[in-house]
Amino acid sequence: MSRSDGTVAVSSRPVVVDAMGGDHGPVETVAGAVTARRELGVPVVLVGRGESVRVELARHGATGEIDVVHAEDVVPMTERGAGAVSSTTTSLTVGCDLVRQGRASAFVSAGSTGAVVSCAIRGIGRAPGVLRPALAVALPSVTGGATVLVDAGATSDPTPEMIAQFATLGASYARLVLGVADPSVGLLSIGSEPGKGNRLTRRAGELLPALPLRFHGNVEGHDVLAGTVDVIVTDGFTGNVVLKNVEGSMRAALTLMARSGGAGAEEMRAVALRYDPETHGGAALLGLAGTVVVAHGSSRAATIARACAVAHDLSDGGAAERSGDLSGAEPVR
Amino acid sequence: MSRSDGTVAVSSRPVVVDAMGGDHGPVETVAGAVTARRELGVPVVLVGRGESVRVELARHGATGEIDVVHAEDVVPMTERGAGAVSSTTTSLTVGCDLVRQGRASAFVSAGSTGAVVSCAIRGIGRAPGVLRPALAVALPSVTGGATVLVDAGATSDPTPEMIAQFATLGASYARLVLGVADPSVGLLSIGSEPGKGNRLTRRAGELLPALPLRFHGNVEGHDVLAGTVDVIVTDGFTGNVVLKNVEGSMRAALTLMARSGGAGAEEMRAVALRYDPETHGGAALLGLAGTVVVAHGSSRAATIARACAVAHDLSDGGAAERSGDLSGAEPVR
Repeated sequence: MSRSDGTVAVSSRPVVVDAMGGDHGPVETVAGAVTARRELGVPVVLVGRGESVRVELARHGATGEIDVVHAEDVVPMTERGAGAVSSTTTSLTVGCDLVRQGRASAFVSAGSTGAVVSCAIRGIGRAPGVLRPALAVALPSVTGGATVLVDAGATSDPTPEMIAQFATLGASYARLVLGVADPSVGLLSIGSEPGKGNRLTRRAGELLPALPLRFHGNVEGHDVLAGTVDVIVTDGFTGNVVLKNVEGSMRAALTLMARSGGAGAEEMRAVALRYDPETHGGAALLGLAGTVVVAHGSSRAATIARACAVAHDLSDGGAAERSGDLSGAEPVR
Repeated sequence: MSRSDGTVAVSSRPVVVDAMGGDHGPVETVAGAVTARRELGVPVVLVGRGESVRVELARHGATGEIDVVHAEDVVPMTERGAGAVSSTTTSLTVGCDLVRQGRASAFVSAGSTGAVVSCAIRGIGRAPGVLRPALAVALPSVTGGATVLVDAGATSDPTPEMIAQFATLGASYARLVLGVADPSVGLLSIGSEPGKGNRLTRRAGELLPALPLRFHGNVEGHDVLAGTVDVIVTDGFTGNVVLKNVEGSMRAALTLMARSGGAGAEEMRAVALRYDPETHGGAALLGLAGTVVVAHGSSRAATIARACAVAHDLSDGGAAERSGDLSGAEPVR
């Protein structure tokens, strides 16, 4: 993938790709890593069962072209949380270790989001100055662009100061990944006027105007898909509820459309698919000492390659590290 | 409206109807009050500008049949919050006063939800034992029934104990208004397993199993329209964000469908309309010393009449008063 400035990304530290994650195992993940390296100029390393991975590399004539780090075990896609961190020999924990050790700049996995997030927080740790990590998801908006929802579920009980950091992390994400030069940031609340909201939101609303970012003010639940702002910041509890509510609402619309006689059901299926958690482009875990991108479980090679480029852009742009520093007067570019 | 047991509701205390609320002023509200009295057997009183109201009553031949309480002023539909309580001579404040004084059992208004809620909390006060009021909205689910979302925005910073009360209030609402004999109650969270959620939700999740109601456990954002449970309980911040997110998601689906060529756009418009805040049947403010039902602003006579019956059922069933008592071992019937 070309960078937004037209150059091809180069970096000494590779992106480590979880070869075992996702529904299509090493077949698609290895193909995606090869594509990322050859076509998008992203340096990559694969982590997973050595034998399986090498078979796939050979199929692409890429033996010796991409390094492989062996990990004996695989976290199943059904593992959705902290249980994933119990083994130190999975592709998730070994991949995160490579990032922690500085041998890789970022980690890409198509594994279960909850399991990847748990392993990454435990295994990589926070970037300097960052209080807590946040999960960012880019939701397609009706205007044709996307709105970054952050935090979509990493930190369920943040302080107002953490929410302010999430705003900065989300704005960096919008710049680096969506290419928005000066992203607007809205605070999710229950009234558009300043001072509306619960205690946490009201206090965060007092901090946000002082940050070096374009603060729009409060937005509401109906703004999430309306393209009102480039970034919507909230706590990880509300963000996760909203993310799943969008998905469920679209699925409900599809069901109700299909039941009403079928006219337009196929069109609605296409709309709903854009908001399916398996297809909305994955989520980036921001604020760790290395970038982590969770691709959807059903990812094919092209999506894995794109996730590698996103991870490389994020780590190269320093979103994870620099955006945690709220003391600087200059916005992160 | 007949009661669920087949009898016609009778009560000495009338429901007071805000004649001035809504987009269609006294024309539809007075017609609705007449319908409520004549066809549904609900005793009613009208509050508003005496002259305007009497003109409408005369059109229905109902002069002297329904009492009118004069209120000089009208809260505009654009007033969405606490500003509405500044005047004591509006139909909102006079209507709430009648409930507080015990001269009416419930208040029905098609005014702005925020304004009605502010006036009701200030003017009526809480029912004995109730810590804070909660707003309940019945959202149509894909199964053909409805799920009560409570609190949809009355109390943005509840304690866990308040959330437990909201569950009881919501279950009473489901019984009395939706006719569900033994409603299931889900706690909105970010994982279906017990113990998932933020601190507030986790603590509420510890209290709910001890209550005399059918506690389903945690539900998630995608369960809101899926018919998973009859009642979804949450804090008023999350509930209000979700309510507006459902509305916005349906509107976004309509926009995206219309843009994709138009096939099915009309069908989607019908689906989206069911979730429009102006048409999803209004909201009931539970836990006050009298029942308050907010009908949508665009209500016509039939909807106002139905709101009167809902208000009468709720007050007659004692949802507001009795469900606040969490000490009883018997579920509220």
